[in-house]
Amino acid sequence: MSPPWQPPWKAGSTLSGSRYSAMELAPDGAAAFVLDQRRLPLEEHYVTCTTVEEVAATIRDMVVRGAPAIGITAAYGLAIAARAATGADYLAALERASELLVATRPTAVNLAWAVGRCLGLAREHASSPAPARAAEMAELARSIHREDVAACRAMGELGAALLPQGSTLLTHCNAGALATGGFGTALGVVRAAAAAGKLTAVFADETRPYLQGARLTAWELAEDGIPVTVITDGMAAHCIDRRGITAVIVGADRIAANGDVANKIGTYGVACIARHHGIPFYVAAPWSTVDLATPTGRDIVIEERAPHELTHLGDRQLVASGVAVYNPGFDVTPASLVTAIITERGVFAPADLPGR
Amino acid sequence: MSPPWQPPWKAGSTLSGSRYSAMELAPDGAAAFVLDQRRLPLEEHYVTCTTVEEVAATIRDMVVRGAPAIGITAAYGLAIAARAATGADYLAALERASELLVATRPTAVNLAWAVGRCLGLAREHASSPAPARAAEMAELARSIHREDVAACRAMGELGAALLPQGSTLLTHCNAGALATGGFGTALGVVRAAAAAGKLTAVFADETRPYLQGARLTAWELAEDGIPVTVITDGMAAHCIDRRGITAVIVGADRIAANGDVANKIGTYGVACIARHHGIPFYVAAPWSTVDLATPTGRDIVIEERAPHELTHLGDRQLVASGVAVYNPGFDVTPASLVTAIITERGVFAPADLPGR
Repeated sequence: MSPPWQPPWKAGSTLSGSRYSAMELAPDGAAAFVLDQRRLPLEEHYVTCTTVEEVAATIRDMVVRGAPAIGITAAYGLAIAARAATGADYLAALERASELLVATRPTAVNLAWAVGRCLGLAREHASSPAPARAAEMAELARSIHREDVAACRAMGELGAALLPQGSTLLTHCNAGALATGGFGTALGVVRAAAAAGKLTAVFADETRPYLQGARLTAWELAEDGIPVTVITDGMAAHCIDRRGITAVIVGADRIAANGDVANKIGTYGVACIARHHGIPFYVAAPWSTVDLATPTGRDIVIEERAPHELTHLGDRQLVASGVAVYNPGFDVTPASLVTAIITERGVFAPADLPGR
Repeated sequence: MSPPWQPPWKAGSTLSGSRYSAMELAPDGAAAFVLDQRRLPLEEHYVTCTTVEEVAATIRDMVVRGAPAIGITAAYGLAIAARAATGADYLAALERASELLVATRPTAVNLAWAVGRCLGLAREHASSPAPARAAEMAELARSIHREDVAACRAMGELGAALLPQGSTLLTHCNAGALATGGFGTALGVVRAAAAAGKLTAVFADETRPYLQGARLTAWELAEDGIPVTVITDGMAAHCIDRRGITAVIVGADRIAANGDVANKIGTYGVACIARHHGIPFYVAAPWSTVDLATPTGRDIVIEERAPHELTHLGDRQLVASGVAVYNPGFDVTPASLVTAIITERGVFAPADLPGR
């Protein structure tokens, strides 16, 4: 099944623009390659998916994570589903596939947004010949991927323009190439700032419990030769105070109409700390993360994840058996703590999102 | 060497007041038993020390940690040194032992304070017969232990009196029985509040990188049947906002004359978050933690610990090889963020420490 076009790739041959990619669709549309982020940074392994069920599992099991990345991966899942649904029940098959994909993770709005776009196309072209439908769905999914990379590059430029020379940035979780189609949202701004010669250093919160900062952000910035220092989440205040951090930049999983920002757990605390120290707190996210249908952060469902992520690391037990743990995957930073929201459509004050 | 009196003990037979103790001196003064906190919560193992070098290693290697606990352990080390130094070079031997002990950890002032008290006695009784010197030094070390437990119980009462009915507390690191002679500073307040029927729940930050909250605080509160929920350090803001935390209580490693508080890394961020949410931030510490000779927090040496604590957990590598990490062991919470300092001598506003 697995086509000859497979990772590792040359940088010019991927939609991500890099030699690695969170996800790519094979040229024939028969397989999606999803980088297994659970194994990073020690191992670069791609999961090859040839069914929508396999794609859904990569999202559910966090092989791939990051709001834009799971949206693109879901679109690739629907491209694979479209190729498999050669009969008259095409639309019903695509609707079932969509339900499966949307149910995998509740908080990121990009997932529902990407699936909605694909389902719209499915409704339009359901009566077309099967090969044409499959080709069109693959092309839409690739467009969603391409648009996301372009959005990240636009955010990078807009975000870097906000930063002064000699910036030292703090970021939380991984809002990088691995969380998007490529280049990254928050890390896109970091990359653009580095390219513009404005960056002195980057501190990366390790981001417990899943360690996206320690494992992923550090890996991808080091890959690009950008000077990154990993700290624990509890070190943010100390480093802002003593190590000259000048701004915080993070991504987002859903932005409510009032500018409240749902992002990886721990973001809200960093925002409080940034405010206490009077440094700017920027959010970078594609417009697809803005959910004008959700009035405020209080209306955003916060995914609660398994206690095991907190009580164990690998095989090692960290918490005494029987002790309660609480493991929300996200928190909501109120708009009042957000200096600006950087999107590919422009930079907005959180209270002034267009279209609300 | 190991005397018949050894752990596990009955609660009435220890100075800690519990069936376990961070450290105890054998009745004959020949051995100190130090609970290996690195193995908790999975295993309750005591290291038996019969030389001051072995005692110093338990402090350096974090078999025992917590400012009051390492002070008491050091005093037991000097009791063992006093017993071994039977000759005319008694004072020189005790001075060498003191230097060894003080050099193990730089930030906690209690260590230097306890060693200073023992050295004062050594100077006074250097010309006494060897058995008398050894007995007196052992008795002083036990007094330091007893006084610390009494101080913790006094802090507990004073701190609990500050709290309203229905309190839900957040604590960071382990300022409990394991960090003291027994009962605990911040957890002494938690225990007294529970006994007074004022406590609804306790949240414990896991406290990366060393996980004192996940491993130690959760273990000792669960041992006492106090309802504790472990969260990651990044969840503090979310839990204050959504889970009804009414106050933060932490311990301290050194309190400067101006009321600035050095404590486990991560404390400062929690203080910023508490202030943002308008809830009180209490520090509980014995008077021996107050260092009037240190004018401000800027004058406190912050111990920087090995990168390995952050890059690895057990055998598991978390951060890509070659990536920089920064691992300060402590941070300084400015007096302006501290609601009150609870000591056995009374509750003080940080700007009003007596004797400054």
